[in-house]
Amino acid sequence: MELNSLFDVLVEELTDLHSAEEQLVAALPNLAAAAHSYELRDAFEAHLNETVGHVERLQQAFVDVGLETIPAGTCKAMRGLLQEATDVIKATGDPVAIDAALIGAAQRIEHYEIAGYGTARALAGELGFDTTRALLDDTLGEESNANKLLTKLAAGGFLSSGINKLAATRTEVGVAGSSDDQTE
Amino acid sequence: MELNSLFDVLVEELTDLHSAEEQLVAALPNLAAAAHSYELRDAFEAHLNETVGHVERLQQAFVDVGLETIPAGTCKAMRGLLQEATDVIKATGDPVAIDAALIGAAQRIEHYEIAGYGTARALAGELGFDTTRALLDDTLGEESNANKLLTKLAAGGFLSSGINKLAATRTEVGVAGSSDDQTE
Repeated sequence: MELNSLFDVLVEELTDLHSAEEQLVAALPNLAAAAHSYELRDAFEAHLNETVGHVERLQQAFVDVGLETIPAGTCKAMRGLLQEATDVIKATGDPVAIDAALIGAAQRIEHYEIAGYGTARALAGELGFDTTRALLDDTLGEESNANKLLTKLAAGGFLSSGINKLAATRTEVGVAGSSDDQTE
Repeated sequence: MELNSLFDVLVEELTDLHSAEEQLVAALPNLAAAAHSYELRDAFEAHLNETVGHVERLQQAFVDVGLETIPAGTCKAMRGLLQEATDVIKATGDPVAIDAALIGAAQRIEHYEIAGYGTARALAGELGFDTTRALLDDTLGEESNANKLLTKLAAGGFLSSGINKLAATRTEVGVAGSSDDQTE
């Protein structure tokens, strides 16, 4: 890797995010199919639509910073994150427990993207690429909202959805839980 | 993977975090050695000390939830995150640009851990493991502070440290930057 300027770092960040989003577009249908809760499935499917838009915004960003072709590159972190998610997708056992683990895997993915977009947005701003900065900011907002929705499904889901009923069953056989403490 | 209860998910989360932290203990000296800014190097070295403590807290958590031995397991996401970080460590070019890229890689790592600890803390709370919840909460606070310090080094560093001087040189040859816009 050659990093001769902050511009080179920005291009690396955009390339990494582009690969990450493309991997996620391929993986989200599997996450949706593995979800037992309808709400969780809907959340994954809605985020798939958003993620397709994130790829398009990155393509616009490459044009904005003056690159005609998108550099090749595989985001190794997203590859690892999705390997972990696949382990959960293939898990056997209690549907509620598996949904809880799916949410955990998905929130790791969202946080990765939040970090990546935060850095890329800062570099674009530093270098005066205002259009790119705005595009990255739009996606960052959607990633942040997706993460908040997952927290809501984890915390509120145990109280008010299909997940709740099964989770309540689990607490009867487990240690008594404090249901007002579900924050992520 | 067998997930028959929320307890099984908590154990998976703790096992994943334990592997992640152990990998990070091994990697942080390399990140520190690659940093050109003294402040960034200090930040990595200070976080290494904290990370050793995070491993110890996880060991206490395993005891608290009743596990005598820590399950084997490799955190694949952290492996990928560190592969990416290693690419930056090995990068050649401008020292300021490389430091900026190191910060980007480190913030992805911090965000991964923030997501992991957030989920594990919620599950521990749900299952009534108050000691484990408190241990995870302490570490989560330190991960969050580490992330904030990296943002400060990235944003403020360009204005007030060794990184600043070199970054200013870069902006002379690049596009004019808005120095009040460095947030991550």
